[in-house]
Amino acid sequence: MHASHPSIAIVGATGVVGREALRILESWGVPSTRVGVFASASSAGIELPYANSFVRVRAWSPSALGQTSVDVLCVTSDLSRRIVSELEGAATQIIDASSAFRMHGGVPLVIPEVNPGALAGEPRLIASPNCSTILLLTALEPLRHAFGVRGITLSTYQAVSGAGRAGLDELRAQTTSVLDGGRSSPRAFPAPIAFNCFSHESAVDPQTGLNGEEQKIIDETRKIWNDDRAPINPTCVRVPVERAHSESVSVTLDRPATREEVRRALQGAPGVRVIDERSAGRFPTPLLAAGCDEVLVGRVRPSPGRRPDPDGRSRSYSLWLCGDQLRKGAALNALQLACLACPSVIERAGACAI
Amino acid sequence: MHASHPSIAIVGATGVVGREALRILESWGVPSTRVGVFASASSAGIELPYANSFVRVRAWSPSALGQTSVDVLCVTSDLSRRIVSELEGAATQIIDASSAFRMHGGVPLVIPEVNPGALAGEPRLIASPNCSTILLLTALEPLRHAFGVRGITLSTYQAVSGAGRAGLDELRAQTTSVLDGGRSSPRAFPAPIAFNCFSHESAVDPQTGLNGEEQKIIDETRKIWNDDRAPINPTCVRVPVERAHSESVSVTLDRPATREEVRRALQGAPGVRVIDERSAGRFPTPLLAAGCDEVLVGRVRPSPGRRPDPDGRSRSYSLWLCGDQLRKGAALNALQLACLACPSVIERAGACAI
Repeated sequence: MHASHPSIAIVGATGVVGREALRILESWGVPSTRVGVFASASSAGIELPYANSFVRVRAWSPSALGQTSVDVLCVTSDLSRRIVSELEGAATQIIDASSAFRMHGGVPLVIPEVNPGALAGEPRLIASPNCSTILLLTALEPLRHAFGVRGITLSTYQAVSGAGRAGLDELRAQTTSVLDGGRSSPRAFPAPIAFNCFSHESAVDPQTGLNGEEQKIIDETRKIWNDDRAPINPTCVRVPVERAHSESVSVTLDRPATREEVRRALQGAPGVRVIDERSAGRFPTPLLAAGCDEVLVGRVRPSPGRRPDPDGRSRSYSLWLCGDQLRKGAALNALQLACLACPSVIERAGACAI
Repeated sequence: MHASHPSIAIVGATGVVGREALRILESWGVPSTRVGVFASASSAGIELPYANSFVRVRAWSPSALGQTSVDVLCVTSDLSRRIVSELEGAATQIIDASSAFRMHGGVPLVIPEVNPGALAGEPRLIASPNCSTILLLTALEPLRHAFGVRGITLSTYQAVSGAGRAGLDELRAQTTSVLDGGRSSPRAFPAPIAFNCFSHESAVDPQTGLNGEEQKIIDETRKIWNDDRAPINPTCVRVPVERAHSESVSVTLDRPATREEVRRALQGAPGVRVIDERSAGRFPTPLLAAGCDEVLVGRVRPSPGRRPDPDGRSRSYSLWLCGDQLRKGAALNALQLACLACPSVIERAGACAI
C-alpha cells in the first residue's frame, strides 16, 4: 500500500451512516491521515470533526477510491451500483452498506458474529445486511448455535434514522409543529411520524402483502443462514424514535431448552448484551441502545401459549431486543467487515476485534 | 325509574376515560338531564362541557349512585372495589371499566361484538375488559367465527393514554423538554417515553416473565372465549403515541382460508373497519384510529413462513390493527355494555346499537 494513500475510505461521509462510521474510526484511534472522507461533489470541501480536529470531504472519483485499501460505501443503492461498476478492475476492497448487492449470488452478505466463513475466498465486494436483519440475527446467533432455530415471528419498532437525515429532521420538525398546535405535514414518510406509528413505508407487494423491509429480512436471513426455507414472519413498523430499532421476537427452537440455558447462551455471546432484570423492571430500550455497539436483549421468557416439557424445557421463546440502527445496524457492521477483510489496514485492529 | 334521577352515571368523569364517555353520550344525543357526572369530592363543582353547555361534577356517594339506573365506573381498581361494595344491595346496574372484577367468577367480562351471551341472567355487575384485549378480540372475532382460532402471537404498540392524564401530560412535557435540549425525567412511567419505547410498565412476574398487561390479555381472552387453553403469546410495549393502541398480530386458524375469505370475514364485521390498500400503501395508524369507534384492520396477509395449500388457503395470517384506547378500548365498550344491559335507559339506543 502506498503510504500517501488513505487506508480506508468512507464514501457518503456526510450522511448519517457515514458520519457514524467516522465516529467509530475516531473511537478506534485510527489517525485521520489513514482515513479518506468522500461524498458527492456538492459536499466537497465540507469539514467534519475528527479526533479533536477536522477532516475535509473530497468528491469521490474512481481514481481516488481505487487507490484506497478499503472503500466503505455508505451511500444509496443506485450510487453504490455506479461506484462498484466504476471500480471494476481496481484492487481495492469494497464494503457496501447499501442494499444494491446483498442478494447477488457472488457477493457474500455477512454479519461477522454470524457467518464470517462467507468471507473465504477474499471476495472483492462484501455486502452488509439490512439493519433489522443485522440486529435480529446477531441476537439469535447464540440460540441458533446452541439449540437450532426452526421459526421466527417478529414485529419491529424502527427508528426514523433508517430513512437518513431526512427522517430524523422530519421527526423533530413535525413533533415541534404538533406540540405548537400545528399539523403534521409528512414529506420523508408517507404518514405522520410525530406521536404516531405506521407500517414501514417501503412498497407492499400486491401478491405477497409483504413490504420491502419485511421481504429483505426474509431474503437476507435465508442467504446468511444458507437456508432457503427458514420460516420467518416479520411485520415492520416505524415508531417515533430517533436512532435505535427494537424488535419483539418469538422464536421456535429445534431443541427445547430451559430459560437458564437460553440466558446462558445469550450472555457473553459476541455482539450481545443481556439486560433482563425482572424485579427492577429494567429491560432494553432504544434510548439505552443508542450509541452502543452491542444488541441489547431482554424479556427472555418461554412463550406462555405452549406448555414446557416436564423438565422445564420449552421450544418456544419470546424476547425483546434493541440495537443502534446507525451503529451495529449499519456503520459498525460495515467497519467490522473492513477489519475482517483487511486486518492490517486499521492499525488498532484490536479495537474492532469481533 | 324516578324521573328526577339521572339514567346513567359516569363515575370518574374528570379522568380521561370518563371525559371520553361524556363525549360519546353527547354524540349519541343523550340529554344532560339524564347524565349524572360524578368524581371524587375534590373535583366536585368542576364544570365539564356537554352538548353546547356544561354539566357540573358532583362528589360520588352510594345514595346518589344507588338511585341511578346504570353506573359506569371509570375509576381506579381500588375505587371500583369500594364503590361496588358500598352499592351492595342497590338495584342499580354497574358497568366497571377497571380491572377490579374482570377475573371474578360471577362477573361477566364482555365485549358486545364477541360474547354478548355472557350477559344472560341480568348480572348486576359487568366488567369491561382491558383495552388491548378489547381491540384484539373485536378484530379477531370474525376470523374466530368463520375459521376458528388456534393460536395468537401479538406485539402491542400502546399509547400513553392507558396510563391516564399523567401519561398524556408526561409524553408532551418530556418531548418538549427533549426538543429544547433538556433531559427526560420519567415520573408517570419508569423509563423515558419521549422518542423512546419500552416494555409495558406493569410488573413482570419473576416466574413466568410476563408483565401484568400481557397476563391480562391471556387471562381475559381465555375468560371471554371460555377456553382455558387458548394459546396466546403477547408482548406489550409502550410507544410515544397519545391515544390509540396498535397491535401486530399473527394468528393460526383452525381451518385454512384464502386471503379473500379472510378479508371478506373482516369486512362488514361489527366494530371492525378494514383499511388495507396495498398499492396506495394505506393502512391503519393510531392517528387515523383516534376518535374512531371501530378497530381499524389492515396488512392482512398469509404468513410467509408457511406454505399455503395448493388451493391458496393458509392457516397462518398476520395483520395490523389500531384502535382508540379511550373509546372502544375503554369508554365506548363500557357504554355499549350499559346499552345492552339497560336498553331503555339511553333514549337514542339506536345510536349505540352494536
